[in-house]
Amino acid sequence: MSKSSPVDLVTETDQKVESMIISSIREKFPTHSFIGEESVAAGAASKLTDNPTWIIDPIDGTTNFVHRFPFVAVSIGFAVNKQIEFGIIYSCVEDKMYTGKKGKGAFCNGEQLKVSGQEDITKSLILTEVGYKQNPDIAKTMFSNMERLVCIPVHGIRAVGTAAVNMCLVATGGADAYYHIGIHCWDMAAGAVIVTEAGGVVMDINGGPFDLMSRRLITASSKAIGERIAKEIQVFPCGRDDGKD
Amino acid sequence: MSKSSPVDLVTETDQKVESMIISSIREKFPTHSFIGEESVAAGAASKLTDNPTWIIDPIDGTTNFVHRFPFVAVSIGFAVNKQIEFGIIYSCVEDKMYTGKKGKGAFCNGEQLKVSGQEDITKSLILTEVGYKQNPDIAKTMFSNMERLVCIPVHGIRAVGTAAVNMCLVATGGADAYYHIGIHCWDMAAGAVIVTEAGGVVMDINGGPFDLMSRRLITASSKAIGERIAKEIQVFPCGRDDGKD
Repeated sequence: MSKSSPVDLVTETDQKVESMIISSIREKFPTHSFIGEESVAAGAASKLTDNPTWIIDPIDGTTNFVHRFPFVAVSIGFAVNKQIEFGIIYSCVEDKMYTGKKGKGAFCNGEQLKVSGQEDITKSLILTEVGYKQNPDIAKTMFSNMERLVCIPVHGIRAVGTAAVNMCLVATGGADAYYHIGIHCWDMAAGAVIVTEAGGVVMDINGGPFDLMSRRLITASSKAIGERIAKEIQVFPCGRDDGKD
Repeated sequence: MSKSSPVDLVTETDQKVESMIISSIREKFPTHSFIGEESVAAGAASKLTDNPTWIIDPIDGTTNFVHRFPFVAVSIGFAVNKQIEFGIIYSCVEDKMYTGKKGKGAFCNGEQLKVSGQEDITKSLILTEVGYKQNPDIAKTMFSNMERLVCIPVHGIRAVGTAAVNMCLVATGGADAYYHIGIHCWDMAAGAVIVTEAGGVVMDINGGPFDLMSRRLITASSKAIGERIAKEIQVFPCGRDDGKD
Protein backbone atom coordinates (compact mmCIF):
# COMPACT_ATOMS: atom_id res chain seq x y z
CA MET A 1 0.00 0.00 0.00
CA SER A 2 1.08 3.56 -0.42
CA LYS A 3 0.13 6.71 1.44
CA SER A 4 0.42 10.17 -0.06
CA SER A 5 2.90 9.25 -2.78
CA PRO A 6 4.27 6.12 -4.44
CA VAL A 7 7.43 6.33 -2.33
CA ASP A 8 5.61 6.63 0.99
CA LEU A 9 4.96 2.99 1.68
CA VAL A 10 2.93 1.46 4.43
CA THR A 11 2.31 -2.19 5.04
CA GLU A 12 -0.44 -4.09 6.77
CA THR A 13 2.26 -5.02 9.26
CA ASP A 14 2.70 -1.36 10.33
CA GLN A 15 -0.97 -1.17 11.21
CA LYS A 16 -1.08 -4.55 12.95
CA VAL A 17 2.00 -3.86 15.06
CA GLU A 18 0.73 -0.46 16.11
CA SER A 19 -2.71 -1.67 17.16
CA MET A 20 -1.13 -4.58 19.05
CA ILE A 21 1.18 -2.18 20.97
CA ILE A 22 -1.56 0.34 21.72
CA SER A 23 -4.10 -2.21 22.86
CA SER A 24 -1.70 -3.97 25.22
CA ILE A 25 -0.55 -0.66 26.78
CA ARG A 26 -4.11 0.63 27.03
CA GLU A 27 -5.13 -2.46 28.98
CA LYS A 28 -2.67 -1.48 31.74
CA PHE A 29 -2.95 2.31 31.45
CA PRO A 30 -6.47 3.11 30.29
CA THR A 31 -6.14 6.88 30.87
CA HIS A 32 -2.93 7.37 28.87
CA SER A 33 -2.83 9.02 25.47
CA PHE A 34 -1.24 7.73 22.26
CA ILE A 35 0.34 9.25 19.18
CA GLY A 36 1.02 6.50 16.67
CA GLU A 37 2.16 6.85 13.08
CA GLU A 38 -0.59 4.69 11.65
CA SER A 39 -3.34 6.10 13.87
CA VAL A 40 -2.39 9.59 12.72
CA ALA A 41 -2.31 8.42 9.11
CA ALA A 42 -5.83 7.07 9.68
CA GLY A 43 -7.01 10.47 10.96
CA ALA A 44 -6.25 10.51 14.72
CA ALA A 45 -4.97 13.75 16.25
CA SER A 46 -1.22 14.25 16.57
CA LYS A 47 -1.26 16.58 19.54
CA LEU A 48 1.03 16.33 22.53
CA THR A 49 -0.72 17.24 25.81
CA ASP A 50 0.45 17.08 29.43
CA ASN A 51 -1.28 13.71 29.79
CA PRO A 52 1.05 10.69 29.88
CA THR A 53 1.50 9.91 26.19
CA TRP A 54 3.01 6.97 24.32
CA ILE A 55 4.54 8.01 21.00
CA ILE A 56 4.84 5.02 18.71
CA ASP A 57 6.38 4.13 15.40
CA PRO A 58 5.44 0.50 14.83
CA ILE A 59 7.92 0.05 11.96
CA ASP A 60 10.50 2.76 11.49
CA GLY A 61 12.06 2.11 8.10
CA THR A 62 9.01 0.82 6.26
CA THR A 63 10.75 1.18 2.90
CA ASN A 64 13.58 -0.96 4.25
CA PHE A 65 11.01 -3.44 5.56
CA VAL A 66 9.33 -3.71 2.15
CA HIS A 67 12.72 -4.28 0.50
CA ARG A 68 14.08 -6.58 3.25
CA PHE A 69 16.93 -4.09 3.71
CA PRO A 70 18.20 -5.12 7.13
CA PHE A 71 17.36 -2.03 9.24
CA VAL A 72 13.89 -1.78 10.71
CA ALA A 73 12.94 -0.75 14.20
CA VAL A 74 10.03 -0.44 16.60
CA SER A 75 10.24 2.91 18.40
CA ILE A 76 8.27 3.76 21.56
CA GLY A 77 8.71 6.98 23.53
CA PHE A 78 6.83 7.96 26.68
CA ALA A 79 6.19 11.61 27.59
CA VAL A 80 4.63 13.25 30.65
CA ASN A 81 3.97 17.00 30.75
CA LYS A 82 5.41 17.08 27.21
CA GLN A 83 8.79 15.83 28.47
CA ILE A 84 10.08 12.49 27.21
CA GLU A 85 10.68 10.23 30.21
CA PHE A 86 11.98 7.11 28.50
CA GLY A 87 12.38 5.55 25.10
CA ILE A 88 12.77 2.08 23.67
CA ILE A 89 13.98 1.24 20.16
CA TYR A 90 14.20 -2.35 19.01
CA SER A 91 16.27 -2.82 15.85
CA CYS A 92 14.63 -6.08 14.81
CA VAL A 93 16.96 -7.65 12.25
CA GLU A 94 20.05 -6.77 14.27
CA ASP A 95 18.26 -7.95 17.45
CA LYS A 96 19.42 -4.85 19.32
CA MET A 97 17.25 -3.43 22.11
CA TYR A 98 18.10 0.21 22.85
CA THR A 99 16.69 1.90 25.94
CA GLY A 100 17.08 5.30 27.57
CA LYS A 101 15.50 6.76 30.71
CA LYS A 102 15.81 10.37 31.84
CA GLY A 103 18.68 10.60 34.32
CA LYS A 104 19.39 6.86 34.20
CA GLY A 105 21.55 6.43 31.09
CA ALA A 106 21.11 4.67 27.76
CA PHE A 107 21.76 1.03 26.97
CA CYS A 108 21.93 -1.45 24.09
CA ASN A 109 21.23 -5.07 25.07
CA GLY A 110 22.24 -4.12 28.59
CA GLU A 111 25.51 -2.37 27.71
CA GLN A 112 25.74 1.32 28.56
CA LEU A 113 26.04 3.66 25.58
CA LYS A 114 28.26 6.66 25.17
CA VAL A 115 28.49 9.03 22.20
CA SER A 116 31.85 9.52 20.50
CA GLY A 117 32.33 12.95 22.07
CA GLN A 118 33.84 14.11 18.76
CA GLU A 119 33.90 17.92 18.49
CA ASP A 120 35.75 18.31 15.19
CA ILE A 121 33.39 18.23 12.23
CA THR A 122 36.24 17.36 9.83
CA LYS A 123 36.68 14.07 11.69
CA SER A 124 33.00 13.24 11.80
CA LEU A 125 30.79 10.60 10.20
CA ILE A 126 27.31 11.98 9.59
CA LEU A 127 23.98 10.26 9.07
CA THR A 128 20.98 11.53 7.17
CA GLU A 129 18.09 10.32 5.07
CA VAL A 130 18.02 10.24 1.28
CA GLY A 131 14.56 9.81 -0.19
CA TYR A 132 12.22 11.68 -2.45
CA LYS A 133 10.30 14.33 -0.54
CA GLN A 134 7.27 16.03 -2.04
CA ASN A 135 8.98 17.88 -4.89
CA PRO A 136 12.17 18.37 -6.92
CA ASP A 137 13.01 21.72 -5.25
CA ILE A 138 13.19 20.04 -1.88
CA ALA A 139 15.34 17.27 -3.34
CA LYS A 140 17.69 19.95 -4.71
CA THR A 141 18.03 21.61 -1.29
CA MET A 142 18.48 18.24 0.42
CA PHE A 143 21.40 17.36 -1.85
CA SER A 144 22.99 20.80 -1.71
CA ASN A 145 22.94 20.49 2.09
CA MET A 146 24.74 17.15 1.83
CA GLU A 147 27.20 18.62 -0.64
CA ARG A 148 28.10 21.49 1.67
CA LEU A 149 28.70 19.08 4.54
CA VAL A 150 30.77 16.66 2.45
CA CYS A 151 32.93 19.53 1.20
CA ILE A 152 33.83 20.83 4.68
CA PRO A 153 35.07 17.98 4.40
CA VAL A 154 33.67 15.40 6.77
CA HIS A 155 34.79 11.75 6.83
CA GLY A 156 31.59 10.63 5.14
CA ILE A 157 27.83 10.50 5.07
CA ARG A 158 25.84 7.34 5.70
CA ALA A 159 22.15 6.61 5.28
CA VAL A 160 20.62 3.40 6.58
CA GLY A 161 16.95 4.33 6.18
CA THR A 162 15.57 4.48 9.71
CA ALA A 163 15.60 7.57 11.88
CA ALA A 164 15.37 5.56 15.08
CA VAL A 165 18.42 3.43 14.25
CA ASN A 166 20.30 6.53 13.06
CA MET A 167 19.78 8.12 16.48
CA CYS A 168 20.90 4.92 18.19
CA LEU A 169 24.04 4.84 16.03
CA VAL A 170 24.92 8.32 17.28
CA ALA A 171 24.26 7.09 20.85
CA THR A 172 26.70 4.18 20.35
CA GLY A 173 29.44 6.50 19.06
CA GLY A 174 29.37 4.72 15.67
CA ALA A 175 28.43 8.02 14.02
CA ASP A 176 28.90 11.59 15.20
CA ALA A 177 25.67 13.21 14.07
CA TYR A 178 22.33 12.70 12.37
CA TYR A 179 20.19 15.43 10.84
CA HIS A 180 16.84 15.30 9.12
CA ILE A 181 14.12 17.68 7.94
CA GLY A 182 10.75 15.98 7.55
CA ILE A 183 11.11 13.49 10.40
CA HIS A 184 8.07 12.87 12.65
CA CYS A 185 7.65 12.89 16.44
CA TRP A 186 7.22 9.09 16.48
CA ASP A 187 10.56 8.73 14.67
CA MET A 188 12.47 10.73 17.28
CA ALA A 189 10.68 10.58 20.67
CA ALA A 190 12.48 7.45 21.88
CA GLY A 191 15.74 8.27 20.12
CA ALA A 192 15.93 11.75 21.67
CA VAL A 193 16.12 10.41 25.21
CA ILE A 194 18.45 7.55 24.22
CA VAL A 195 20.97 9.85 22.55
CA THR A 196 20.74 12.47 25.30
CA GLU A 197 21.29 9.86 27.99
CA ALA A 198 24.32 8.61 26.04
CA GLY A 199 25.83 12.09 26.40
CA GLY A 200 24.74 13.52 23.07
CA VAL A 201 22.74 16.60 22.20
CA VAL A 202 19.47 17.14 20.34
CA MET A 203 18.62 20.46 18.76
CA ASP A 204 16.48 22.06 16.12
CA ILE A 205 17.83 22.05 12.56
CA ASN A 206 18.68 25.75 12.98
CA GLY A 207 20.64 25.11 16.18
CA GLY A 208 17.85 26.28 18.51
CA PRO A 209 16.08 24.19 21.16
CA PHE A 210 14.81 20.75 20.18
CA ASP A 211 11.08 20.65 19.49
CA LEU A 212 9.53 17.17 19.29
CA MET A 213 6.65 18.33 17.08
CA SER A 214 8.75 20.43 14.68
CA ARG A 215 9.69 17.64 12.22
CA ARG A 216 13.29 18.92 12.35
CA LEU A 217 16.25 17.40 14.11
CA ILE A 218 19.97 17.53 14.60
CA THR A 219 21.42 15.07 17.06
CA ALA A 220 25.15 14.99 17.66
CA SER A 221 27.99 13.77 19.81
CA SER A 222 28.68 17.38 20.86
CA LYS A 223 27.14 20.83 20.73
CA ALA A 224 30.02 21.97 18.50
CA ILE A 225 29.23 19.45 15.77
CA GLY A 226 25.49 20.02 16.01
CA GLU A 227 25.88 23.77 15.63
CA ARG A 228 28.33 23.41 12.76
CA ILE A 229 25.80 21.27 10.88
CA ALA A 230 23.03 23.81 11.65
CA LYS A 231 25.23 26.50 10.09
CA GLU A 232 25.49 24.60 6.79
CA ILE A 233 21.89 23.48 6.44
CA GLN A 234 19.46 25.37 4.29
CA VAL A 235 15.99 24.71 5.72
CA PHE A 236 12.95 23.86 3.59
CA PRO A 237 9.39 23.96 4.94
CA CYS A 238 7.87 20.67 6.04
CA GLY A 239 4.92 21.50 8.35
CA ARG A 240 4.66 20.58 12.03
CA ASP A 241 3.30 17.34 13.47
CA ASP A 242 0.83 19.27 15.64
CA GLY A 243 -0.36 21.48 12.79
CA LYS A 244 0.69 24.68 14.60
CA ASP A 245 2.17 26.23 11.46
CA MET B 1 47.15 7.46 9.50
CA SER B 2 45.91 9.06 6.35
CA LYS B 3 46.77 8.43 2.72
CA SER B 4 46.37 11.04 0.02
CA SER B 5 43.88 13.21 1.89
CA PRO B 6 42.56 13.63 5.43
CA VAL B 7 39.43 11.67 4.57
CA ASP B 8 41.29 8.71 3.08
CA LEU B 9 42.07 6.83 6.25
CA VAL B 10 44.18 3.76 6.70
CA THR B 11 44.88 1.91 9.87
CA GLU B 12 47.70 -0.29 10.97
CA THR B 13 45.06 -3.02 11.04
CA ASP B 14 44.55 -2.74 7.26
CA GLN B 15 48.22 -3.41 6.71
CA LYS B 16 48.46 -6.23 9.23
CA VAL B 17 45.38 -8.05 7.92
CA GLU B 18 46.60 -7.81 4.33
CA SER B 19 50.07 -9.13 5.05
CA MET B 20 48.58 -11.94 7.13
CA ILE B 21 46.26 -12.97 4.27
CA ILE B 22 48.95 -12.72 1.60
CA SER B 23 51.58 -14.63 3.54
CA SER B 24 49.26 -17.50 4.39
CA ILE B 25 48.04 -17.83 0.78
CA ARG B 26 51.58 -17.53 -0.60
CA GLU B 27 52.71 -20.41 1.59
CA LYS B 28 50.28 -22.72 -0.23
CA PHE B 29 50.46 -21.12 -3.70
CA PRO B 30 53.94 -19.65 -4.11
CA THR B 31 53.52 -18.88 -7.84
CA HIS B 32 50.27 -16.93 -7.53
CA SER B 33 50.04 -13.15 -7.88
CA PHE B 34 48.44 -10.64 -5.50
CA ILE B 35 46.78 -7.28 -5.83
CA GLY B 36 46.14 -5.89 -2.36
CA GLU B 37 44.92 -2.45 -1.42
CA GLU B 38 47.71 -1.81 1.07
CA SER B 39 50.45 -3.33 -1.09
CA VAL B 40 49.40 -1.05 -3.94
CA ALA B 41 49.30 1.93 -1.57
CA ALA B 42 52.85 1.00 -0.59
CA GLY B 43 53.98 1.00 -4.22
CA ALA B 44 53.26 -2.51 -5.57
CA ALA B 45 51.93 -2.83 -9.12
CA SER B 46 48.18 -3.04 -9.62
CA LYS B 47 48.20 -5.01 -12.84
CA LEU B 48 45.96 -7.95 -13.61
CA THR B 49 47.74 -10.66 -15.65
CA ASP B 50 46.65 -14.14 -16.75
CA ASN B 51 48.47 -15.61 -13.75
CA PRO B 52 46.20 -16.80 -10.91
CA THR B 53 45.71 -13.63 -8.88
CA TRP B 54 44.26 -12.95 -5.45
CA ILE B 55 42.65 -9.52 -5.23
CA ILE B 56 42.38 -8.42 -1.62
CA ASP B 57 40.81 -5.66 0.40
CA PRO B 58 41.83 -6.38 3.99
CA ILE B 59 39.31 -3.90 5.45
CA ASP B 60 36.65 -2.59 3.13
CA GLY B 61 35.07 0.33 4.94
CA THR B 62 38.12 1.69 6.75
CA THR B 63 36.29 4.92 7.61
CA ASN B 64 33.54 2.83 9.20
CA PHE B 65 36.19 0.81 11.01
CA VAL B 66 37.82 3.96 12.43
CA HIS B 67 34.41 5.20 13.60
CA ARG B 68 33.15 1.80 14.80
CA PHE B 69 30.27 2.16 12.37
CA PRO B 70 29.09 -1.43 12.16
CA PHE B 71 29.89 -2.30 8.52
CA VAL B 72 33.37 -3.52 7.71
CA ALA B 73 34.35 -6.41 5.49
CA VAL B 74 37.27 -8.46 4.32
CA SER B 75 37.03 -9.00 0.56
CA ILE B 76 39.03 -11.60 -1.38
CA GLY B 77 38.55 -12.35 -5.07
CA PHE B 78 40.45 -14.91 -7.14
CA ALA B 79 41.02 -14.46 -10.88
CA VAL B 80 42.58 -16.72 -13.52
CA ASN B 81 43.15 -15.48 -17.07
CA LYS B 82 41.66 -12.17 -15.88
CA GLN B 83 38.31 -13.88 -15.10
CA ILE B 84 37.10 -13.90 -11.50
CA GLU B 85 36.61 -17.51 -10.43
CA PHE B 86 35.38 -17.03 -6.89
CA GLY B 87 34.95 -14.40 -4.23
CA ILE B 88 34.61 -14.28 -0.46
CA ILE B 89 33.36 -11.32 1.57
CA TYR B 90 33.22 -11.50 5.34
CA SER B 91 31.11 -8.76 6.93
CA CYS B 92 32.81 -8.88 10.30
CA VAL B 93 30.46 -7.08 12.70
CA GLU B 94 27.39 -8.76 11.23
CA ASP B 95 29.27 -12.09 11.19
CA LYS B 96 28.06 -12.80 7.65
CA MET B 97 30.23 -14.84 5.30
CA TYR B 98 29.31 -14.30 1.66
CA THR B 99 30.74 -16.57 -1.03
CA GLY B 100 30.30 -16.92 -4.77
CA LYS B 101 31.87 -19.29 -7.25
CA LYS B 102 31.51 -19.10 -11.04
CA GLY B 103 28.67 -21.42 -12.07
CA LYS B 104 28.03 -22.63 -8.52
CA GLY B 105 25.85 -19.92 -6.98
CA ALA B 106 26.27 -17.40 -4.18
CA PHE B 107 25.70 -17.96 -0.49
CA CYS B 108 25.56 -16.15 2.84
CA ASN B 109 26.34 -18.29 5.87
CA GLY B 110 25.37 -21.29 3.77
CA GLU B 111 22.04 -19.94 2.50
CA GLN B 112 21.75 -19.45 -1.25
CA LEU B 113 21.34 -15.84 -2.39
CA LYS B 114 19.03 -14.46 -5.05
CA VAL B 115 18.70 -10.86 -6.20
CA SER B 116 15.29 -9.18 -6.01
CA GLY B 117 14.76 -9.46 -9.75
CA GLN B 118 13.16 -5.99 -9.66
CA GLU B 119 13.02 -4.41 -13.14
CA ASP B 120 11.10 -1.23 -12.34
CA ILE B 121 13.41 1.58 -11.25
CA THR B 122 10.54 3.45 -9.54
CA LYS B 123 10.21 0.53 -7.11
CA SER B 124 13.92 0.24 -6.42
CA LEU B 125 16.15 0.87 -3.44
CA ILE B 126 19.60 2.02 -4.58
CA LEU B 127 22.96 1.98 -2.85
CA THR B 128 25.90 4.27 -3.43
CA GLU B 129 28.79 5.89 -1.60
CA VAL B 130 28.77 9.42 -0.21
CA GLY B 131 32.20 10.73 0.64
CA TYR B 132 34.49 13.55 -0.34
CA LYS B 133 36.35 12.73 -3.52
CA GLN B 134 39.33 14.81 -4.63
CA ASN B 135 37.52 18.07 -5.35
CA PRO B 136 34.28 20.07 -5.05
CA ASP B 137 33.40 19.66 -8.76
CA ILE B 138 33.32 15.92 -8.34
CA ALA B 139 31.20 16.27 -5.21
CA LYS B 140 28.78 18.42 -7.22
CA THR B 141 28.45 15.79 -9.94
CA MET B 142 28.12 13.01 -7.37
CA PHE B 143 25.16 14.74 -5.71
CA SER B 144 23.50 15.79 -8.96
CA ASN B 145 23.63 12.12 -9.99
CA MET B 146 21.90 11.15 -6.75
CA GLU B 147 19.36 13.92 -7.22
CA ARG B 148 18.45 12.73 -10.71
CA LEU B 149 17.95 9.18 -9.43
CA VAL B 150 15.90 10.25 -6.40
CA CYS B 151 13.65 12.37 -8.62
CA ILE B 152 12.78 9.55 -11.04
CA PRO B 153 11.60 8.78 -8.25
CA VAL B 154 13.09 5.69 -6.68
CA HIS B 155 12.07 4.34 -3.26
CA GLY B 156 15.26 5.61 -1.67
CA ILE B 157 19.03 5.71 -1.60
CA ARG B 158 21.10 4.07 1.11
CA ALA B 159 24.82 4.30 1.88
CA VAL B 160 26.45 2.00 4.41
CA GLY B 161 30.07 2.77 3.61
CA THR B 162 31.51 -0.44 2.24
CA ALA B 163 31.45 -1.38 -1.43
CA ALA B 164 31.77 -5.08 -0.67
CA VAL B 165 28.77 -5.12 1.67
CA ASN B 166 26.79 -2.98 -0.79
CA MET B 167 27.35 -5.60 -3.49
CA CYS B 168 26.32 -8.35 -1.07
CA LEU B 169 23.14 -6.43 -0.18
CA VAL B 170 22.21 -6.42 -3.87
CA ALA B 171 22.95 -10.16 -3.98
CA THR B 172 20.57 -10.78 -1.04
CA GLY B 173 17.76 -8.83 -2.72
CA GLY B 174 17.82 -6.26 0.12
CA ALA B 175 18.65 -3.54 -2.40
CA ASP B 176 18.11 -3.41 -6.14
CA ALA B 177 21.28 -1.71 -7.33
CA TYR B 178 24.60 -0.21 -6.32
CA TYR B 179 26.64 2.23 -8.36
CA HIS B 180 29.97 3.87 -7.70
CA ILE B 181 32.62 5.87 -9.55
CA GLY B 182 36.02 5.72 -7.88
CA ILE B 183 35.76 2.16 -6.54
CA HIS B 184 38.87 -0.08 -6.79
CA CYS B 185 39.35 -3.61 -8.15
CA TRP B 186 39.86 -4.94 -4.61
CA ASP B 187 36.49 -3.47 -3.58
CA MET B 188 34.59 -5.28 -6.33
CA ALA B 189 36.43 -8.44 -7.41
CA ALA B 190 34.73 -10.71 -4.87
CA GLY B 191 31.42 -8.85 -4.97
CA ALA B 192 31.18 -9.09 -8.76
CA VAL B 193 31.09 -12.89 -8.74
CA ILE B 194 28.79 -13.02 -5.69
CA VAL B 195 26.20 -10.71 -7.21
CA THR B 196 26.42 -12.36 -10.64
CA GLU B 197 25.97 -15.81 -9.13
CA ALA B 198 22.93 -14.49 -7.22
CA GLY B 199 21.35 -13.65 -10.59
CA GLY B 200 22.35 -10.00 -10.77
CA VAL B 201 24.26 -8.07 -13.39
CA VAL B 202 27.47 -6.07 -13.28
CA MET B 203 28.23 -3.40 -15.88
CA ASP B 204 30.29 -0.32 -16.49
CA ILE B 205 28.89 2.98 -15.20
CA ASN B 206 27.95 3.86 -18.82
CA GLY B 207 26.05 0.59 -19.29
CA GLY B 208 28.87 -1.12 -21.25
CA PRO B 209 30.73 -4.29 -20.25
CA PHE B 210 32.04 -4.54 -16.68
CA ASP B 211 35.78 -3.85 -16.43
CA LEU B 212 37.40 -4.83 -13.13
CA MET B 213 40.22 -2.29 -13.49
CA SER B 214 38.04 0.65 -14.57
CA ARG B 215 37.12 1.95 -11.10
CA ARG B 216 33.50 2.20 -12.28
CA LEU B 217 30.60 -0.06 -11.41
CA ILE B 218 26.89 -0.56 -11.64
CA THR B 219 25.54 -3.77 -10.19
CA ALA B 220 21.82 -4.42 -10.24
CA SER B 221 19.05 -6.94 -9.81
CA SER B 222 18.29 -6.68 -13.55
CA LYS B 223 19.74 -5.33 -16.77
CA ALA B 224 16.79 -2.90 -17.00
CA ILE B 225 17.60 -1.21 -13.69
CA GLY B 226 21.33 -1.15 -14.36
CA GLU B 227 20.86 0.49 -17.75
CA ARG B 228 18.36 3.01 -16.37
CA ILE B 229 20.90 4.09 -13.75
CA ALA B 230 23.61 4.32 -16.43
CA LYS B 231 21.33 6.66 -18.40
CA GLU B 232 21.06 9.09 -15.45
CA ILE B 233 24.68 9.12 -14.33
CA GLN B 234 27.04 11.84 -15.40
CA VAL B 235 30.54 10.35 -15.31
CA PHE B 236 33.57 12.10 -13.84
CA PRO B 237 37.16 10.98 -14.47
CA CYS B 238 38.77 8.84 -11.79
CA GLY B 239 41.73 7.04 -13.41
CA ARG B 240 42.07 3.27 -13.86
CA ASP B 241 43.53 0.82 -11.36
CA ASP B 242 45.98 -0.49 -13.98
CA GLY B 243 47.08 2.99 -15.07
CA LYS B 244 45.97 2.38 -18.69
CA ASP B 245 44.41 5.83 -19.02
